[in-house]
Parts: sequence; C-alpha cells; structure tokens
Amino acid sequence: MNHFPLSDRVTVKRLPHRAAYDLATIHAILDEGLVCHVAFLVDGQPCVIPTLYVRLGDHVYLHGSPASRMLQALQQGGTVCIAVTLVDGLVLARSAFHHSMNYRSVVLYGAPAVVEDPVRKAEVLRGLTDHVIPGRWQDIREPSDQELRRTLVVSIPITEASAKVRTGPPLDDEPDYALPVWAGVVPLRLAAAEPIPDPRLDPGIAPPLYAAAYAKPGPAR
Amino acid sequence: MNHFPLSDRVTVKRLPHRAAYDLATIHAILDEGLVCHVAFLVDGQPCVIPTLYVRLGDHVYLHGSPASRMLQALQQGGTVCIAVTLVDGLVLARSAFHHSMNYRSVVLYGAPAVVEDPVRKAEVLRGLTDHVIPGRWQDIREPSDQELRRTLVVSIPITEASAKVRTGPPLDDEPDYALPVWAGVVPLRLAAAEPIPDPRLDPGIAPPLYAAAYAKPGPAR
Repeated sequence: MNHFPLSDRVTVKRLPHRAAYDLATIHAILDEGLVCHVAFLVDGQPCVIPTLYVRLGDHVYLHGSPASRMLQALQQGGTVCIAVTLVDGLVLARSAFHHSMNYRSVVLYGAPAVVEDPVRKAEVLRGLTDHVIPGRWQDIREPSDQELRRTLVVSIPITEASAKVRTGPPLDDEPDYALPVWAGVVPLRLAAAEPIPDPRLDPGIAPPLYAAAYAKPGPAR
Repeated sequence: MNHFPLSDRVTVKRLPHRAAYDLATIHAILDEGLVCHVAFLVDGQPCVIPTLYVRLGDHVYLHGSPASRMLQALQQGGTVCIAVTLVDGLVLARSAFHHSMNYRSVVLYGAPAVVEDPVRKAEVLRGLTDHVIPGRWQDIREPSDQELRRTLVVSIPITEASAKVRTGPPLDDEPDYALPVWAGVVPLRLAAAEPIPDPRLDPGIAPPLYAAAYAKPGPAR
C-alpha cells in the first residue's frame, strides 16, 4: 500500500473500520477541502484557528501575515496538528443513539518550515489560488515583490496522517428496524450560489465561468 | 455591551475590525454550525479533532464514546480550545494579494467538565439532535439507560470566546480598480440535497419535512 509508517497518534482507535491511511484517500480529501483547522501551542496551551491551505505534492502549505499569531507560533518549532473535515450528510437512524454523520476527514501532524524562496512562495500562492478557485490566477494581478515580502508561507510535510471516512446508511440495532420511522441520509455539501459583483465593478464585465459555475467536486455517494 | 472580560488569547490581533465579542454574535455562529474542531493536548502535543456539538445556554456540549481519545484527554483537566467556522463565500479581488474569504468563526477556551447526571445527559443529547436536525427527536427511539451509560457528555463554559467575521466585497488597492477583471463574491453555504432512504426502509414511509426540506439558516448577505 502507498502509505507511510503509522505512528500511534495517527492510528484511528475509535471505529477503526472508518480509517484510511493510503495517500490517495488523504490527498483527495485535502484537495477537496477549502479550510483547515490548525492546532498549535501558545504558552503550553492548545489553540485552534481556521485558515485556507493547499496541498502541493507531499506538503500542505499555509499562508498569512507575518504578524499572524498562528504563523508566529508555527515558527517556534514543535509539531502542529491539522484537520480537514468534509461534511457529507446527516445519518438519521431509528434510535437517537445511532444517529451519525457522513464525513471525510484528515488529521496530520508535522513540523512547519518557512518557505523563504520568493519564487517558491509565488508558486505556492498560485497553487493556493488554483486550489480554491481554479482558473482565477490567469486573470488577476500577481503579487508584487512587496506583497510577497508581506506574506508568510509555511510548509508542513504529509508524513504522519490518517483519514477517517463514514459513508452509507444508518446502522440500527436489529430490533429497531421494525420501528415505523423514516431513516436514511440527508446529503450535505458546500454549494455555491450566483456570484455577487463588487459594487465598484464595471457592469460591462461579466462573471467568468469559474465564478458563475463554481463547484467543488462532491463525494461519491 | 453583553460580553465578558477579554483575555489576551481571545483578543483578535490580526484585522481587529473583524472581531466581535458580544454574546449574540457568538451564540448565533455556534447555533448555525454543525461541526466544531476541538484542540487538546496529548503528551504535551496539540491535537485537533472534528466533532458534533451543541450550545445550550452558556455552555457548549460535546459527546461521544467513553473510549474516545479526545474525550479521555478532555477529562485530564486543562483547557481546550474549540473553533466553529462557517464558510460564507470566496472573495475575488483584482489582485492575488487581496483575495479573501467571507466567513464567521468563533474560538473559545474553557475547562471541560463531565456531565454525570443521566437526566441532564439525556437533555443534552436531545438538544444536540434538535440542533443538528430540528424535529427529529420526537420520531426516534430515545436512549436507553445502557446507551446513556455508553455516552460521555462533556460541557465547556462559554466564558472566554471571540468571533471573527468577514463580509462584503473585496477591498482592492485603489489603482487596481481600473483593471478589467471581474471582482466580487461567490457565495457558499452548506446545502442539503434530497434525502436518501435507508435500503431497509419500508417504502411506504415518506421522508419527514425536516429531512426533505433540511436547511441550516444562512448568513445575512
């Protein structure tokens, strides 16, 4: 299998049949998500912050202002933990106890490193834009040298990670199947609506297809 | 204002104009989210795990198996950090640098306590179900005593929290407004699709309205 050695902390203990450790599953989840949650230490206390990210090759990249507390903490050394969670549906069972959620999530641990090279930084920012909204980069003004200096980019290797996936219908206790209760799944996904033009936009400029028909790929159901 | 004293760690330092500390804003975001991300320590290392939650009054409640590593860690004492993040839209500026995201997020810190009283545990589980899918509880088999014993419920007080909110159009550098580039917002929201019946469901049982017309309230745009 195409996966790395499992550490204890990425080994899924609860409901291990939901676990996946292969890189294809992990990459697919990372590539579909928009926002990750980054856990890090400040004065020995755990903190968690949402932020955009992109996976490029075998690293995840974060970016932000050099003044960001999260990015400052990430430069202090130590490992961080990053979670990406895709919500796919509500699982309605016949008993309260077996209600659940269909989801795909990745948790990874790694030591962050600052990306210093401005060429690589620009590549990562392009990759981030391509990840969030494919097609956008070619239309926009690229970062100036000053903007690049004002942007901190951090990489975390994907070397210690696991995925957890729940799919499919509810699993009820056998006697409960006789209850006259609707059961099944309410599918959920992050959906886009019609783009809202900037009030200062020239009304002659139509929204590009990547904005008008924006959709992240959904899960296989 | 209806808010609590601000600690340093919940005071928003980056882009402070996006910060909100009033309880109404914080509660509204917590009430709209489905999944939170909980950061906690294991052997001094930060970990982050997604999980369902509910706000009832001035506490957030988590639940799960007593074997859950996260819930076990939460019983060791210390504070946890919880983030709830609602993604409202992609903000497409004229420059790469000013691309952003519209979002509403809450970060809170608190010391978890186990809810021991079975009556209160049952109330919390009902509250959780009402939060995730209002109307469901009345249709389902309620938890048995044994199921309640197999469910750990943890409360975290909402006494140290902040919200961060970005809304509205992109904010470009003044010269960039002259660029012939579409700019604006692609609205995003968690949307429900038609319910998928359990393969073992009696085909005579129609989906209830709360499943057929499931929708979480969206942001004011």
